[in-house]
Amino acid sequence: MVRIVVDAMGSDEFPKPDVEGAVLAAREYGVEIILVGDESVIRPVLDAQNAKDLPIRIVHAPEMLSMEYKGEELVLKARNKDARNSMAVGIDMVKKGEADAFVTVGNTGAGMVTALFRLGRIRGVDRPALAPIFPTATGFCVVLDIGANPDCKPENLLQFAILGSVYAEKVRGVKNPKIGLVSNGEEEGKGNELIKATTPLLKAAKINYFGNVEGKEVIGGVVDVAVTDGFTGNIMLKSSEAVAKLIIDKIREIIKNGNLITKLGGLMIKPALSAIKKILDPSEQGAAPLLGVNGLVFIGHGRSDAFAIKNAVRVAKEAVEVNLLDAMKSAIEESLK
Amino acid sequence: MVRIVVDAMGSDEFPKPDVEGAVLAAREYGVEIILVGDESVIRPVLDAQNAKDLPIRIVHAPEMLSMEYKGEELVLKARNKDARNSMAVGIDMVKKGEADAFVTVGNTGAGMVTALFRLGRIRGVDRPALAPIFPTATGFCVVLDIGANPDCKPENLLQFAILGSVYAEKVRGVKNPKIGLVSNGEEEGKGNELIKATTPLLKAAKINYFGNVEGKEVIGGVVDVAVTDGFTGNIMLKSSEAVAKLIIDKIREIIKNGNLITKLGGLMIKPALSAIKKILDPSEQGAAPLLGVNGLVFIGHGRSDAFAIKNAVRVAKEAVEVNLLDAMKSAIEESLK
Repeated sequence: MVRIVVDAMGSDEFPKPDVEGAVLAAREYGVEIILVGDESVIRPVLDAQNAKDLPIRIVHAPEMLSMEYKGEELVLKARNKDARNSMAVGIDMVKKGEADAFVTVGNTGAGMVTALFRLGRIRGVDRPALAPIFPTATGFCVVLDIGANPDCKPENLLQFAILGSVYAEKVRGVKNPKIGLVSNGEEEGKGNELIKATTPLLKAAKINYFGNVEGKEVIGGVVDVAVTDGFTGNIMLKSSEAVAKLIIDKIREIIKNGNLITKLGGLMIKPALSAIKKILDPSEQGAAPLLGVNGLVFIGHGRSDAFAIKNAVRVAKEAVEVNLLDAMKSAIEESLK
Repeated sequence: MVRIVVDAMGSDEFPKPDVEGAVLAAREYGVEIILVGDESVIRPVLDAQNAKDLPIRIVHAPEMLSMEYKGEELVLKARNKDARNSMAVGIDMVKKGEADAFVTVGNTGAGMVTALFRLGRIRGVDRPALAPIFPTATGFCVVLDIGANPDCKPENLLQFAILGSVYAEKVRGVKNPKIGLVSNGEEEGKGNELIKATTPLLKAAKINYFGNVEGKEVIGGVVDVAVTDGFTGNIMLKSSEAVAKLIIDKIREIIKNGNLITKLGGLMIKPALSAIKKILDPSEQGAAPLLGVNGLVFIGHGRSDAFAIKNAVRVAKEAVEVNLLDAMKSAIEESLK
């Protein structure tokens, strides 16, 4: 049985969504769940779940890395082998082989730093990358990196391309995934210095390299994986979310302030608008993997609800089952030859 | 009377939208229009406009810089003082003082390069920036640069901030505009090396500096001007456009494939959806200025229609009337002291 550690202290509303989502996952996907966090806080929520028959246990971790922790402080905590926060305790279980994957929707920076320092990196990977799913016209696109590395070298982007390709193929079920390099223009030769220096590396790599892509190709679903530095990727993600919110809000506003016909029409298309929100909702896709660390770690939005956390556990389980970590290691080893 | 040169060979459907838009502008805003381009092509379209009473004339330019022209070739054409393409001829009129501003919706790269080499730069500006308007929750945000400079130095971003501030205040009517620096996180200290090195320069500048902004703040309307390198800005713009298109397309699709109630509701909110499209439509805002060249140049989307071109002429006229160029020169001179 696949064993997933879930950070019970992760979400903005912790521990309720985290515990409830984990219970849902245990029930629906037949996984073993280890809840890490403050037992006195977790226990009552778990006991209220009617989950006695499920393989769920609590591992006590008295501290938590809330959103206030940043920079050097996080690094110190991540490096402290006696750290007793829920992320450190949970990730250590993966490291020791006591669990197969770690899922958190807590402080993203804390999750990345804790994973990096405690698990280390896959041999041949210089920097791990956070790789969420963007909704597209035809389905989804894996975008990496979206925040772990604001400054990248061409070699980092090459590694992201290989890691993203393996993830899209093994976990997201895309055969021979098409890899695009995010740039300010589709034509070869367009781009900043980083893009120009990265292009020959991607061409030479054993991936299905498509070429430069703009937002049009990423959101249009032309490629399966979009490779970018963490600065640009983060801005793409945040801008896309903001535009989606703006449009949905404006439609609501116009309907609300409209005449009777508009209002009635708005009521009638409410299910359609909900369907759109569902397409755009990252919680449908679970959490994003931190690719390149030497273990399986998934990090989701702090505002995740139980449903999102359940989905995050599902994706983690699938990654374990297809042995994502070994597949990434092999692909990176291959690229070093 | 303000004199605007309009490139009649600019739009994807040239010369019809270009000529029609210019005629509309002459009629509505009382400007003098000089149409540059192939007279044999422009003349019949102009003659069909019933515009004999308007101050519109044609200046013949037998060649055009279509989308195929790129890179070195453009630079050679831009540098050739005898060049007879519509952009070169039109921009030379501005340089010689025979017109006050140049408007084109043709090849963006060609417009930028031709303007840069023929007009030169404002003293103290190292690189000009293209500065379109993004729609926001509360109105709009000027974003620059969105494509002229894929690789920037901190000094470039400082100059963009000053130019954008003057433009937002003088032409867009924002008092003491708030300037944000686009980054992967709002907190100070977040960002890539470029952002970290730019922050002290913006803090010391005579602008209303707000701090780092993400898509949330830009699209949410928290700042009036968002400063970024041309690579990031271009990707923000293209991704935002792509997401907006995806959502509108998905809503249409769901309504089209929906049941009778959804379809009827869709019909009833059609005006609301059109209103959204209008908010998101760049043609409402005219063209984007190329700030930092020594003359007033506006560059719009190739897919502009007559309405968009009319609006582009309006913005150009407003820039002339407030003496944008001198205001930018003074602000940059001030920053050099």
